[in-house]
Amino acid sequence: MTRDTPAPPDSDLCLRPATELAALVRTREVSARELLEAHLARIERVDPQVNAIVTLDAEGARAAADAADAALAAGEQVGPLHGLPVAHKDTHATGGMRTTWGSPLHAGTVPERDELVVERLRRAGAVRVGKTNVPEFAAGSHTFNPLFGATHNPYRHGLSAGGSSGGAAAALAAGLVPVAEGSDMGGSLRNPAAFCNVVGLRPTPGRVPTWPAAMGWSTLSVQGPMGRTVADVALVLSAIAGPDPRVPIALADDPAGFAAPLPEDLRGLRVAWAPDLGGLVPVDPAIPAVLREVLPVVESLGGVVTEACPDLREADEVFGTLRGWLFEATFGEAVRRSPDQVKAAIRGNAAIGAALSGADVARAEMAHTRLYEEVVRFFGDHDVLLAPTTQVLPFPVEQEYPTEVAGVPQADYLGWMRSCTLVSATGCPALSLPGGFTPDGLPVGLQLVAAPRADRRLLEIAHAIEQATGFGRRRPVL
Amino acid sequence: MTRDTPAPPDSDLCLRPATELAALVRTREVSARELLEAHLARIERVDPQVNAIVTLDAEGARAAADAADAALAAGEQVGPLHGLPVAHKDTHATGGMRTTWGSPLHAGTVPERDELVVERLRRAGAVRVGKTNVPEFAAGSHTFNPLFGATHNPYRHGLSAGGSSGGAAAALAAGLVPVAEGSDMGGSLRNPAAFCNVVGLRPTPGRVPTWPAAMGWSTLSVQGPMGRTVADVALVLSAIAGPDPRVPIALADDPAGFAAPLPEDLRGLRVAWAPDLGGLVPVDPAIPAVLREVLPVVESLGGVVTEACPDLREADEVFGTLRGWLFEATFGEAVRRSPDQVKAAIRGNAAIGAALSGADVARAEMAHTRLYEEVVRFFGDHDVLLAPTTQVLPFPVEQEYPTEVAGVPQADYLGWMRSCTLVSATGCPALSLPGGFTPDGLPVGLQLVAAPRADRRLLEIAHAIEQATGFGRRRPVL
Repeated sequence: MTRDTPAPPDSDLCLRPATELAALVRTREVSARELLEAHLARIERVDPQVNAIVTLDAEGARAAADAADAALAAGEQVGPLHGLPVAHKDTHATGGMRTTWGSPLHAGTVPERDELVVERLRRAGAVRVGKTNVPEFAAGSHTFNPLFGATHNPYRHGLSAGGSSGGAAAALAAGLVPVAEGSDMGGSLRNPAAFCNVVGLRPTPGRVPTWPAAMGWSTLSVQGPMGRTVADVALVLSAIAGPDPRVPIALADDPAGFAAPLPEDLRGLRVAWAPDLGGLVPVDPAIPAVLREVLPVVESLGGVVTEACPDLREADEVFGTLRGWLFEATFGEAVRRSPDQVKAAIRGNAAIGAALSGADVARAEMAHTRLYEEVVRFFGDHDVLLAPTTQVLPFPVEQEYPTEVAGVPQADYLGWMRSCTLVSATGCPALSLPGGFTPDGLPVGLQLVAAPRADRRLLEIAHAIEQATGFGRRRPVL
Repeated sequence: MTRDTPAPPDSDLCLRPATELAALVRTREVSARELLEAHLARIERVDPQVNAIVTLDAEGARAAADAADAALAAGEQVGPLHGLPVAHKDTHATGGMRTTWGSPLHAGTVPERDELVVERLRRAGAVRVGKTNVPEFAAGSHTFNPLFGATHNPYRHGLSAGGSSGGAAAALAAGLVPVAEGSDMGGSLRNPAAFCNVVGLRPTPGRVPTWPAAMGWSTLSVQGPMGRTVADVALVLSAIAGPDPRVPIALADDPAGFAAPLPEDLRGLRVAWAPDLGGLVPVDPAIPAVLREVLPVVESLGGVVTEACPDLREADEVFGTLRGWLFEATFGEAVRRSPDQVKAAIRGNAAIGAALSGADVARAEMAHTRLYEEVVRFFGDHDVLLAPTTQVLPFPVEQEYPTEVAGVPQADYLGWMRSCTLVSATGCPALSLPGGFTPDGLPVGLQLVAAPRADRRLLEIAHAIEQATGFGRRRPVL
């Protein structure tokens, strides 16, 4: 293909890996504008089926794509994502573009400036096409809100795409954008990746510095990359990771290293398999049934698999308390001012937070510290932990949340997300990888967890498994 | 001097810089045993006047010194502090050696193992001679407790040595050890350094990882090095800094860089002078009168001095709330169990902590975050902030704390320490440097503050000023 040929049909270009697309643009085999037009055409055709993109700025994107092409034509140095269309999570501030948080309270909010993760993607050359759908204030792992409705699973219309980065995961799976980002407090980068058969990385806190942030030292909610392949996720991470002087917990490592080629060798890898996180979470038996098929593949690559799990018994208290504390601090005022315009789950969390004493928070922080030491100890003996990303399969979009998991009634909207929330409480990086399909074709996510700060190692391991299993190559028919 | 000459009189060897002593031992011009004996003799002669060393293990130290000499004789690789006597703060756990926290509750506590800072000094080759005196549970910047009484200022018997690392500062000033360490929540490495005319560095939180720690993400209390020169402090820092996988906030930089030679050039340095921290703290006028003399020296080295200060108005709330919260979490149980065996200041702090709501702590953390952004902004325009370390001169040991500063009554035992506590709340590294003497011979400390993580730059600036002023060379007559 040369610059003079017309853009190919969207389904050809739009499902390729971002790493390939970035190379095609950089070598000017495909122009940024051509790439954008293919994606805009596909968004127009496919998004009505999934409802992933809630704000679209085609003209702004065309101007940015043309500028990207001009920069290449002028021989300028360009960033690693040059010319790649990107959509931002609608909880991330985009300068001059509506940012709603999925809440009627922010239906008309247009931030003046980009927040850091958005700014970094722009500086890396990505072309902003719009915003991806979220649950109200990103609360919960099912993407629906009063402004835009629910996002549908690209693999089965009518089922949930997961959340809270549900619009991002669905957009990737549907080929609407080649790269995306999200955030993850209790699974919001992993759960939708699992439901939509893409890759979501919850990095170590501080790996992708969040700015501005109300509580600079908080590690519960992190931002991170999503993509259709592990290498794509690594590429995005190389653009959004790295220190920022305004962020006290930012990790200092040079982010460029994340984009280096990923090895595929797992010889001697010590793999822990924890199908129910040490007996702590009920899981739909269909899920481990699928994931168990991955284990012989890991062994064939040289991994040594044993069933083991760190002791996560304190993780519920840590996550529940710190989440409530953060919600009250962040949303408490809005809840009290406009209780009717905030969903019950948020009111509930803020109420939990409002009832906390300083000593309750201190106890949670001390348990948090013990938990960190426990996982550091565990990962002295293991390189990676494999577990289900989700406890349930994608459920009907009409359902607010699963009230029962494998026959066990769930007390609240967080119960079905504990396979992710317990991991959030540890401080470990965690990634959801396509892990296979149920007999009737629903995707299942494999959660990989590594030691704190071992984000690069986690990507290497995930890439090797991805290459050997290939589940991510099975794309939905749209 | 060769190995066969007898050890020189203690006053010759014991007041030399640690950097010189380390070189003498490494080249075997002085044996570790000789060096130790000189210090033991000096401790025996001088410590009764200052009461800095509260636990002494001469025999254990002799065994360690002999082992250090044997390692050199065998040609083994040795650490940067090989053969240097060291005393540990009595709030730091020393394996097999009494660790009292200055509290009757721990009069007989003998930890099983070293905590990390102690272990790192041992691994760097330091020879443990004993423990240095502290206020009860390190609370307050005046070193006295019911177990060991008060530490006296080596420059004037009967006056305070400061605190809480008061025993360490007095031991250094008196030549009882060449290197020491301490900790600093509200000035405990800086205030005693100022009172005793030595150097104390409060590093950026995470620079010297604290382990074990009850709250792994807390940044209020940090451990750090003390010495008679800036280069000595840098040498100790090179041994105790660096990442530890168990410590989530640990900074990853290679600590060896701290021991590299320090430049003495300040050309173009942007220096902010804040004699009362922007009007926020009363200061005995004798103190800025002394410190102002340093400014022309800084200018003669090429620095450009302007009067400026970051906005620290929120720092009192941040420090007060987080301190109370930490005290309640750490000591609340002991206070409730044994109220009569804990001093009133600790009961008061724990009571403040017990009354805090989660929302109070969240508000403090949000103010903490704003304060961090403020200092990052400020240090975009300035390389270093110069201010008084203390608001008062050393006061009589019988006084629990100054109840009045420059005519202003102080509400509690923290009031006179605000020149340090406000800086603690920012997250910046800060160092106290000998800044001159009052006309009647009392030392005055100059506080240098730099941007978060700029510990090395801070040491370089302090070293250049130290070399040009030379106040640290004026040692007490003992």
